[in-house]
Amino acid sequence: MITGKNQIGSIKSANGNVVFRSNNPKTNTPNPWQFIEATEREVNDAVELADRAFLSFSKTSIKIRQELLNKIAEGLEDSKDVLIEVYCMESGLPISRAITELNRTVYQLRSYGAYGASEDFNKTTEDVVNGVSLRKVNVPIGPVVVFGSSNFPFAYSTAGGDTASALMAGCPVIVKGHSMHPGTGELVAEVIAKAVSSCHLPEGVFSNLNAQSYKVGQQLVMHPKVKGVGFTGSITGGRAIFDLASRREEPIPVFAEMGSINPVVFSEKELEENGSDWVKKIVKSMLDGAGQFCTNPGLIIALKGSALDKFLEEFVEVLSKQDPQCMLSASVHDSFDKLRRTQMKRKGVITLSAQRTPTELNYSQATLLKVAGVQFLEQPELQEEVFGPFSIVVECESTTELIKVIESLNGQLTGTLNCKEEETEFATAVLNALSLKVGRLIFQGVPTGVAVSESMHHGGPYPACTDSRFTAVGGDSIKRWLRPLCLQNIPNYF
Amino acid sequence: MITGKNQIGSIKSANGNVVFRSNNPKTNTPNPWQFIEATEREVNDAVELADRAFLSFSKTSIKIRQELLNKIAEGLEDSKDVLIEVYCMESGLPISRAITELNRTVYQLRSYGAYGASEDFNKTTEDVVNGVSLRKVNVPIGPVVVFGSSNFPFAYSTAGGDTASALMAGCPVIVKGHSMHPGTGELVAEVIAKAVSSCHLPEGVFSNLNAQSYKVGQQLVMHPKVKGVGFTGSITGGRAIFDLASRREEPIPVFAEMGSINPVVFSEKELEENGSDWVKKIVKSMLDGAGQFCTNPGLIIALKGSALDKFLEEFVEVLSKQDPQCMLSASVHDSFDKLRRTQMKRKGVITLSAQRTPTELNYSQATLLKVAGVQFLEQPELQEEVFGPFSIVVECESTTELIKVIESLNGQLTGTLNCKEEETEFATAVLNALSLKVGRLIFQGVPTGVAVSESMHHGGPYPACTDSRFTAVGGDSIKRWLRPLCLQNIPNYF
Repeated sequence: MITGKNQIGSIKSANGNVVFRSNNPKTNTPNPWQFIEATEREVNDAVELADRAFLSFSKTSIKIRQELLNKIAEGLEDSKDVLIEVYCMESGLPISRAITELNRTVYQLRSYGAYGASEDFNKTTEDVVNGVSLRKVNVPIGPVVVFGSSNFPFAYSTAGGDTASALMAGCPVIVKGHSMHPGTGELVAEVIAKAVSSCHLPEGVFSNLNAQSYKVGQQLVMHPKVKGVGFTGSITGGRAIFDLASRREEPIPVFAEMGSINPVVFSEKELEENGSDWVKKIVKSMLDGAGQFCTNPGLIIALKGSALDKFLEEFVEVLSKQDPQCMLSASVHDSFDKLRRTQMKRKGVITLSAQRTPTELNYSQATLLKVAGVQFLEQPELQEEVFGPFSIVVECESTTELIKVIESLNGQLTGTLNCKEEETEFATAVLNALSLKVGRLIFQGVPTGVAVSESMHHGGPYPACTDSRFTAVGGDSIKRWLRPLCLQNIPNYF
Repeated sequence: MITGKNQIGSIKSANGNVVFRSNNPKTNTPNPWQFIEATEREVNDAVELADRAFLSFSKTSIKIRQELLNKIAEGLEDSKDVLIEVYCMESGLPISRAITELNRTVYQLRSYGAYGASEDFNKTTEDVVNGVSLRKVNVPIGPVVVFGSSNFPFAYSTAGGDTASALMAGCPVIVKGHSMHPGTGELVAEVIAKAVSSCHLPEGVFSNLNAQSYKVGQQLVMHPKVKGVGFTGSITGGRAIFDLASRREEPIPVFAEMGSINPVVFSEKELEENGSDWVKKIVKSMLDGAGQFCTNPGLIIALKGSALDKFLEEFVEVLSKQDPQCMLSASVHDSFDKLRRTQMKRKGVITLSAQRTPTELNYSQATLLKVAGVQFLEQPELQEEVFGPFSIVVECESTTELIKVIESLNGQLTGTLNCKEEETEFATAVLNALSLKVGRLIFQGVPTGVAVSESMHHGGPYPACTDSRFTAVGGDSIKRWLRPLCLQNIPNYF
């Protein structure tokens, strides 16, 4: 049941007087529940509870932590009907997406549990040096704060990847829920609290706090007993958290997965031979989830010529037949609309997509722009992520200019090359240049679709994320919350 | 030959007009060479050269990088006579220590090379998810700046652990040499430049810059083409670099290994039975290298009682028979002397060691203080590292107070417990409390003596270092300079 309260360990708590509601972006009306923002005292209580739970939770067996993740997965499946209903009311996303995302979340919990409990992941090394025995193990860093994301109410929020990986590492988690979907958050938090209790773990292992203002998040990041932060969202938000955490007396690691425009490069030959196929794939990749994915293809890079002209002609045509889609909220919609208009007005930018204003509020206008390479290079502002169904095509005069365009890019989650395998010279040059900028290099594909697997890397040079050495997706995301501890001659009973 | 110039790739360069000299702390006189501080232009040249070398160096085989490290090791051995002579003139350390440290440096280069080139270290993972092939490899992060340390002119400076690990990762290195031993630095830099050339690698793979002011270091850390920093030194220095790097438009990882007071806990029984043995071991650990080690035992924690009294009586006696030792420089000596006097004056602090001022300049006065647990808890300033032969004994009224003392500590490189193995209750409580604070947990030993091995972890919670998830010693230190890259369907020729 949605009460609007904070989940502090096993207790539902609401001592504050600041309230807010989520909105249904489809109807543009407030949802029926009222949420009470956590007070300073409640924030502190949640952290103190997490800190008290830390030592014993850190010493639980990996099997128990795996059981916890499995119980959360099971609980989500048991509550799926109500979860999906509330998810749709708070996100405006279609039911099919809600189901896919819930399944993904459940899969993440189970697969991180299995991977984190595997022999491979828990391999310790042992040396004897001059008669001294050294054994290196991993231990959790301490209580972790997770900021829920706007665009993944299930998979990167309350019981999402950050929470699953931190719990598997042995770190208690305090979630600062996203204010766009606090109802979904409360229901998921209940499932987690129940799983914690049924695994006989200390209640401080998990808390979930409501907040619409920045205050709660800031207090959490600055709390001396918080030892790490996970965040998924905008560069502005992620950087603000990183800056706060870096300025603490004791700086703490922040893993913020932020913005990306995910360049997709096409060779002329590829467009000539398979242009029509790529139009379908790229339009789907651009519009899925109303383009509100961090791996949305926001930048298309190709050589000027008839192959590109034909590709773009079809692109515009296919795009014009797509229905507008509801965005996550009025503010996401308005920000999208403002930013895309700003980009449309920049020097040398040509708007390719038809401009029909959607008749429904909060629905998005898919936007395709074109700019010459030289003008793209002159205006780094064109690299700003426009969160939603938006792409800029950079039309290059030569391969040299195309490589320069890639070299000018900020860090990215992904970089894609679509060309013939036999175009080895072009491919090598593009892949070399892209490899310095991205966390995932894709050949013959689209950037959306982030598989949850051991070999996935979802991260990349700044501003894609704040630490390119770690991933937000896949079992290795657990490593963000672990630190090595060398045991020198320590008795076995410890 | 020592020319006083900067090594910028293959070139010796000295366009500046700011000069400085190193001093011989034993004679308290300037050494014969004059060093020219790198100009802004030279700093920029070194970084641009490193950046241009990066792509091709990053794509070299691990065998070639191992060869590079082996050639550097060989070069150091070939030049060992002159290296050791200059090392002693610039550090005041005895020749025996110079030899040990050179051997350690050579061993580090060879062992990081072997480990970094091993199959185990280079294991890639591969998955096929829905017909899409994903392969995760590690790639170097980019040019790395290494700040030489004052206390390890060989092992944690020009060709030290940070340089060896970064080169093995495939990152070009720019060393900002320590101004106390620029002569040693220049000779070592020459060896490295020669090795780079004989491996037919681009010259930008390595540069070495002279500086006495902070300007060169600051410019390096702020340069947009620098992608990581390694530092060994004080909290003040490390934190300043961390703060600079965090405030960059693109923040970069800084691995700073900084201060530690390395608590050593004794049980009553252990002191009763083996007190005299421990006096010898602890005094040696405290005085080795004139106490100028980051793992120096600066804090001894034990229960009040006759066993402790007897231990301290012997401790003071043995200490009084030790000769004063020359410290690394006049400034290190003066700072030691000032800080130890400050600590001596704090509330409730009793000076146990005899106070005889050494007759020679820059020689240290080994200092042993005592304070009651309650007063230690009241004065966090007593946790400040006094770099040199210095220890405070914290005398606790009860095990509860002793645990509180541990819980009050800042992050540490090491924590040691000396008790009987059968004192399981005491041991478990102490080890639990220590484990939350340290990077290496030691049973029956002393903290000095950091083995270079795969299972070593030399790091720990802040302020021991700026990122507890990485180590400064052992082959895993290479991981600081690597980031994962996921290759999705990428052709084999890339």
